[in-house]
Amino acid sequence: MDYNAHLDAAIGKLHDEGRYRTFIDIERRKGHYPHAVWRKDDGSEQSITVWCGNDYLGMGQHPVVLAAMKEALDATGAGSGGTRNISGTTVYHKRLEAELADLHQKEASLLFTSAYIANDATLSTLPKLFPGLIIYSDELNHASMIEGIRRNGGAKRVFKHNDLDDLRAKLAADDPAAPKLIAFESVYSMDGDFGPIKEICDLADEFGALTYLDEVHAVGMYGPRGGGVAERDGLLDRIDIINGTLGKAFGVHGGYIAASAKMCDAVRSYAPGFIFTTSLPPVVAAGAAASVAHLKTDQALRDLHQERAAALKLRLKGLGLPIIDHGSHIVPVVVGNPVHTKILSDHLLEDFGIYVQPINFPTVPRGTERLRFTPSPVHGPKEIDKLVHAMDNLWSHCALNRAEMAG
Amino acid sequence: MDYNAHLDAAIGKLHDEGRYRTFIDIERRKGHYPHAVWRKDDGSEQSITVWCGNDYLGMGQHPVVLAAMKEALDATGAGSGGTRNISGTTVYHKRLEAELADLHQKEASLLFTSAYIANDATLSTLPKLFPGLIIYSDELNHASMIEGIRRNGGAKRVFKHNDLDDLRAKLAADDPAAPKLIAFESVYSMDGDFGPIKEICDLADEFGALTYLDEVHAVGMYGPRGGGVAERDGLLDRIDIINGTLGKAFGVHGGYIAASAKMCDAVRSYAPGFIFTTSLPPVVAAGAAASVAHLKTDQALRDLHQERAAALKLRLKGLGLPIIDHGSHIVPVVVGNPVHTKILSDHLLEDFGIYVQPINFPTVPRGTERLRFTPSPVHGPKEIDKLVHAMDNLWSHCALNRAEMAG
Ligand SMILES: Cc1ncc(COP(=O)(O)O)c(C=O)c1O
Ligand SMILES: Cc1ncc(COP(=O)(O)O)c(C=O)c1O
Repeated sequence: MDYNAHLDAAIGKLHDEGRYRTFIDIERRKGHYPHAVWRKDDGSEQSITVWCGNDYLGMGQHPVVLAAMKEALDATGAGSGGTRNISGTTVYHKRLEAELADLHQKEASLLFTSAYIANDATLSTLPKLFPGLIIYSDELNHASMIEGIRRNGGAKRVFKHNDLDDLRAKLAADDPAAPKLIAFESVYSMDGDFGPIKEICDLADEFGALTYLDEVHAVGMYGPRGGGVAERDGLLDRIDIINGTLGKAFGVHGGYIAASAKMCDAVRSYAPGFIFTTSLPPVVAAGAAASVAHLKTDQALRDLHQERAAALKLRLKGLGLPIIDHGSHIVPVVVGNPVHTKILSDHLLEDFGIYVQPINFPTVPRGTERLRFTPSPVHGPKEIDKLVHAMDNLWSHCALNRAEMAG
Repeated sequence: MDYNAHLDAAIGKLHDEGRYRTFIDIERRKGHYPHAVWRKDDGSEQSITVWCGNDYLGMGQHPVVLAAMKEALDATGAGSGGTRNISGTTVYHKRLEAELADLHQKEASLLFTSAYIANDATLSTLPKLFPGLIIYSDELNHASMIEGIRRNGGAKRVFKHNDLDDLRAKLAADDPAAPKLIAFESVYSMDGDFGPIKEICDLADEFGALTYLDEVHAVGMYGPRGGGVAERDGLLDRIDIINGTLGKAFGVHGGYIAASAKMCDAVRSYAPGFIFTTSLPPVVAAGAAASVAHLKTDQALRDLHQERAAALKLRLKGLGLPIIDHGSHIVPVVVGNPVHTKILSDHLLEDFGIYVQPINFPTVPRGTERLRFTPSPVHGPKEIDKLVHAMDNLWSHCALNRAEMAG
């Protein structure tokens, strides 16, 4: 058995399709984000501006976050040294869980080492808690939800993206007595469009289904206290389980669910992905708690975020670039081909010091390869100017189409 | 559909079986570990000694680790702000991966957010890379390996724990042309026994199988540079994929595999659990790299660790307690019943300030419920004395059997 030949084939396929990923090695300099340093393979360095990070609000550099982390490091040390059950539960974890339960107006919350594992572990455990559970899953749900739903071979129905008729038809086709759960997102991160939360909750009520909402790309950024789109729309009490991350707008690391005390207790007790792993370092929990608490009151930062996103979209639209605009903070420019996307990204980086990673299959469907820009409050008018000029220049240079490709 | 009734039933079952987990909320005080503070539900505090942590060498409190973390926090901020591919690769991640590849004498290593997800993601991705792969899995493998092996419904054969005859029979029964992988551990953490690494590698050679070794409870602690049992036994080059954690003996957080450059590249490119999640915070990577580097030379700490474990085992054996002793650093005392184990654990905590969490099903088989002590270099003779006296006292009080129950 020639194992290396198989590895060569697997890697070669990616090269052939132009979607082999090359990681760009960057180093942020505290206080200078989104400016950073690109460390090239030959050891040389170049100043760049990060335009594709998911530290959407720049909280990863915020003094309250860094102060809380330093304090925890001084008080308690590095790692937790255990799973949550075996010596790895600390006051830092408890405080953060209380902060998150409050954020989402739920009885409880449960921390995981990432939102990926929160999705995977929770969605794969629910069929154990509700035997016969049927999960209705939006076709564009994130990989971590898909992995969780697939894991235990429970019943699943994939409905068309944001398509209420299709969802209704699928709900109606199943046994009314079967336990059901609808899993979807509030902001789909690659197109930046919103899920129809209210309408899905109405269907859930009608068919007696639980609701599971991934707010990973919304927490911190939407709602008067950063509780996400469900908070903004006054729908928190209609969502049974909310999933969020501490690694994007909150700027640190980790993930969670927020739900009823019973639900969290049952997931806590049955999910291998929660039970059998070292808990988050107290220092990470401390930073995240400070970030969540801060964003409960800093509406100005949220407003500035939206203003910057609106400004960038206006400028790119003015140039006739095919951006997708659903009114969220995410600014995707569809190129539609992995090779062109990579060329654009390479030129932006090398010639203009603008770092935006190409987004390829399987992250997005083939033929919709794109550059995905993430403006933030720390991306000022100067940075926006530079980006717009670079895009204009390259778009002409590559003779790319300026027709509106997306809505 | 009464969802709450199902949750009640699931939680009630655990209460009925005496294995409902109550997390103990503890706070380490930097520099005082294993002494810590237990924060009770009523808000009061009690000084305790942690005897069940997996910060086996006390590195979570080590000055070199804390200094590296503080430095990274000052230099670069909190979170990475992205997945490894999309702005989340930094010099800290690269340095740590280089440190780990060197530790295991492999061409490359690949970081994950935990060793749980490293096992799960890698083992569930290998069947995509090697179509038709059959995975031979030790029956006592960790939950994270089991989850990974089960995930994609690939072929698996579970062999009896450490049973070479059974493994051989299962290998021999399959198509000689099929790709094969043997997955096992070097130190099984609940019994503290060792896997027969050399003999399994011999079988792998004979049957053309890859070897996958979980060294989570060995890295940092065994081998002249902390490379694990495979390093100690001179077998590093016979293991195709090594899995390790940064959250136990290294005292921080995160996990990894070390393997050939091709293997790491393929897993990096195909594993959803690697691709679709925020990378470890640079501050965590910095602390872990400092810890790994330090332990490459601090043999004295490893020696002291083994001395302390040997001392504790000798003392407990002297009292006729049913400890399991396979010559590793882990000291399990088998109680054999979840209710008794919990009573012992409660008394140790409340009456003696000794914190050791009961270990129940499904972490260990029913009927082998236990207290699992983890002596470390920072558990000195005084702490050992106190523990031995408390155990003697309680064992008599509860009229538990002193016959040798385990080998
Ligand atoms: C054998 C084994 N493998 C893997 C893991 C997972 O490691 P981590 O805590 O880094 O997720 C553990 C324990 O947590 C373990 O005991
Ligand atoms: C929709 C969605 N859910 C979950 C996750 C996972 O979050 P985390 O990075 O905390 O693992 C991501 C991205 O990483 C995501 O885009």
